[in-house]
Amino acid sequence: MKKTVVLLSGGLDSATVLYWAKKRGYTIFPLAFDYGQRHKNEISAAKKLARAAGVGLEVIRISLPWKGSSLLDPKVPLPQSSSLQKVGAAIPSTYVPGRNLIFLAFGFSYAEAIGASFVLIGANSIDFSGYPDCRPQFFRILNRLVLEGTKKGIEGKPMKVLAPLVRLSKAGIIRLGMRLKVPYRLTWSCYAGGKKPCGKCDSCLLRAKGFAEAGIPDPLVY
Amino acid sequence: MKKTVVLLSGGLDSATVLYWAKKRGYTIFPLAFDYGQRHKNEISAAKKLARAAGVGLEVIRISLPWKGSSLLDPKVPLPQSSSLQKVGAAIPSTYVPGRNLIFLAFGFSYAEAIGASFVLIGANSIDFSGYPDCRPQFFRILNRLVLEGTKKGIEGKPMKVLAPLVRLSKAGIIRLGMRLKVPYRLTWSCYAGGKKPCGKCDSCLLRAKGFAEAGIPDPLVY
Repeated sequence: MKKTVVLLSGGLDSATVLYWAKKRGYTIFPLAFDYGQRHKNEISAAKKLARAAGVGLEVIRISLPWKGSSLLDPKVPLPQSSSLQKVGAAIPSTYVPGRNLIFLAFGFSYAEAIGASFVLIGANSIDFSGYPDCRPQFFRILNRLVLEGTKKGIEGKPMKVLAPLVRLSKAGIIRLGMRLKVPYRLTWSCYAGGKKPCGKCDSCLLRAKGFAEAGIPDPLVY
Repeated sequence: MKKTVVLLSGGLDSATVLYWAKKRGYTIFPLAFDYGQRHKNEISAAKKLARAAGVGLEVIRISLPWKGSSLLDPKVPLPQSSSLQKVGAAIPSTYVPGRNLIFLAFGFSYAEAIGASFVLIGANSIDFSGYPDCRPQFFRILNRLVLEGTKKGIEGKPMKVLAPLVRLSKAGIIRLGMRLKVPYRLTWSCYAGGKKPCGKCDSCLLRAKGFAEAGIPDPLVY
């Protein structure tokens, strides 16, 4: 029984990773974060996904009172690219300082406490190369850090972060997810809140482009 | 004006680091964590120390529901070494999985959001070599990780963790702190709660040994 923690944001990528782990027979411990996002749709999507996959969800509430991101600060406008060409060209305002490191640190704390060997994350660096904490070299260095900086690592039972989607495009992730039967209708990608996705933010545009390129209709109603 | 975040636990080591930074003219942003410790004495000590140093304190509340440490789980007995020889020989039950990585991740998030270049931590590896996340190699790898994994790092404005006490003994830290005029009477080291330190836990024993070796009376009443 390979135990793994899965960071579950409620979005398309982490949902795919959840089902990737399920398919591979991991015993899954999903972890979501309520960190002051603009809306709670992500959390409720994570809950629905965990329920659909038949696993319990741990939700950690944290606050980042210093904000520093349009995802956390309602006064900063969300990026709305008129053209997707711009996405990935620079680090977007939705970058949250240190977010993935914080999430992964909690993930490794959880993994070590329950004796799991892996922390899975849905990061990908093709469509979102603007986020420095989503790139393969970030995860490589983190694995060295966890080897040196945890009891399990010191005792010769290393833990690792796995980012199985890191070199896939959004369309590639969706094609993989369709084979894994990911219930994409339960996922939430939109940066804004509301009952339906806005269809205009970077995240909505990337999602739409991904489904279009994969040649599959998005099961989420716009 | 060099801005720095200081991780302030309310203990002797982080208090010394606070005054080390003050002496060097840093603009200081102290950060404390309410993470489900057995008692709140640490938090109130951190508040008193910040007030004494004339700086504001940010307190982050987090939960680690998986526990995995005698510091978090009242059902696990605290270590009470009959002899200090044993301290440092193995990783003690007070080790909290991933704790320093979580604290430092928040520290770097804060530092990046406010444009600070450093995160200071009072870790030392001489008297507590049992904690893998207190050692120089842990901090070296973390600096590489932060260089690769943050916006500031990518933009050529690297942030660093500094652990100025990492190679000092407890007595060495106390001697340094006396020169820096650290108000040690405001600090709290005991793992147990209560109005007075227990005088029996590892942390109390190390503190007493440190003051004894430094030839200075502990201003905290036992």
